[in-house]
Amino acid sequence: VSAPVIAIHAGAGAVGGTATREEARSRAALLEALGAGRAALESGEDAVAAVAAAVEVMEDFELFNAGRGAVLCADGTVELSAAVMRSGDRAAGAVASVQRARHPVRAAEAVMHSPQVLMVGPAADRAADLAGLEVVTPEYFITDHQRRRLAAPVTGAEHATVGAVCRDAEGLLAAATSTGGIRAQPPGRVGDCPLIGAGTWADDRVAVSCTGDGEAFIRSGVARYIAALVEAGVGLGQACERALGLVEAAGGEGGLIAVGADGQRAMPFISEVMPRGVWRAGGEAEVWVR
Amino acid sequence: VSAPVIAIHAGAGAVGGTATREEARSRAALLEALGAGRAALESGEDAVAAVAAAVEVMEDFELFNAGRGAVLCADGTVELSAAVMRSGDRAAGAVASVQRARHPVRAAEAVMHSPQVLMVGPAADRAADLAGLEVVTPEYFITDHQRRRLAAPVTGAEHATVGAVCRDAEGLLAAATSTGGIRAQPPGRVGDCPLIGAGTWADDRVAVSCTGDGEAFIRSGVARYIAALVEAGVGLGQACERALGLVEAAGGEGGLIAVGADGQRAMPFISEVMPRGVWRAGGEAEVWVR
Repeated sequence: VSAPVIAIHAGAGAVGGTATREEARSRAALLEALGAGRAALESGEDAVAAVAAAVEVMEDFELFNAGRGAVLCADGTVELSAAVMRSGDRAAGAVASVQRARHPVRAAEAVMHSPQVLMVGPAADRAADLAGLEVVTPEYFITDHQRRRLAAPVTGAEHATVGAVCRDAEGLLAAATSTGGIRAQPPGRVGDCPLIGAGTWADDRVAVSCTGDGEAFIRSGVARYIAALVEAGVGLGQACERALGLVEAAGGEGGLIAVGADGQRAMPFISEVMPRGVWRAGGEAEVWVR
Repeated sequence: VSAPVIAIHAGAGAVGGTATREEARSRAALLEALGAGRAALESGEDAVAAVAAAVEVMEDFELFNAGRGAVLCADGTVELSAAVMRSGDRAAGAVASVQRARHPVRAAEAVMHSPQVLMVGPAADRAADLAGLEVVTPEYFITDHQRRRLAAPVTGAEHATVGAVCRDAEGLLAAATSTGGIRAQPPGRVGDCPLIGAGTWADDRVAVSCTGDGEAFIRSGVARYIAALVEAGVGLGQACERALGLVEAAGGEGGLIAVGADGQRAMPFISEVMPRGVWRAGGEAEVWVR
């Protein structure tokens, strides 16, 4: 069994987006997220705990489009989505269109431990509350910064999301993804992030977390396709490339991170930039904002 | 190009369920649904129109768990889901947790013609209303029959859904699925039906519509997996078998219908029964309730 590895992304976007304008802060946030995942692994927690810890940090960082930093819908409300999945029993949990969970990835994790896989809307928020998770008032997400951002013109691709994939020391694979969706999206719109097999997937061969034009990723079944290709013997890098080719054919752009059962990782993107990072046990954390 | 073909299902369940208890009526409804799909094809409409027409008929039949016949959630409300997808451009549309659209498959079709792929909750109902679709009051779905059914004990597997797949004369493939979910499910729970790649998928090789334990189907990425296997050269029947093997490994049961680019069809199930039917141009419609 090779060394544990964790990779993260903070969305695929354009040069000039938040992450590149605030490069130093974004790099620090990526390093902090990797550090949280690493700390979980080093304290003996599993891959699910590691991806959730890394995503939770990114959900708290106001410049990434997830949790605290989530963009607003067209009507000024916020709608968050997240998913988590692990190899082995292929347990999965996801939430969509939630408005109260401070850390949607934790709400997704709670759903994973329930008989359901996907919970949406106010009922999902109530379930998170009942599970003892931290819930916040709408003002936590609907900030002056986000109101100004909603009012500003759209300049280039904006489809940030955050995600993490991990292979732990026991060989368990896990993936988690979290997003605030698209700025000024219609309320009720759900992208690929919380859809198991579209934006998030983990089985015994590969764990995948995607970011990009959600509709194109759904219509390409990106994450599940990569897993099927790897199962068929296609190399991880080539599998990711073929999946992103489908996204491009569907008129979309974006990227993804993936880690294989052998600890190999891939972080391809067909957008201008994809802030990302990777840490492998025994090595140093590496992050890239472009 | 081979003759047009359309296949339908009305859910996977147990002997003793509604469909087997009311066998004659169920057979008549399946024949009517196939007839609606056939009429669409014979009047020159495409595979999307055919699957939507067939599903619409089944949504109106009170004994199938979709539309009018949808089971109720634990709190006595109704939450409907549906999806549609076509080959070629892989356009897709879906709705989940809707409560007002009389024909959820038509709401999904309207979403397919919008920039979104998945819309959930009240916003999806409003969009259906704005699209000029028929909306109804909750009383249309929340009937005395369904209230009594909600109060009755669960006896055996109950995960009916309706769906259709079609290959038209031009070679276009389409799939559609519609459901009321699981009886007494928690409000906010979404199954595989409206998730593109889980319960519904269509590309240039195959169209798939699933029914069964939604969570196990999501965790297996059933429909997208079948398409990837067919792309890799696996025969349609064997691809379906392998996908249902994953469902079984995830502790679930159910079935699916699929049609390939060559017009070949498969209708396997690992539940006790799966009411289903098929019509191929030049032949007679065939239906099975068990």
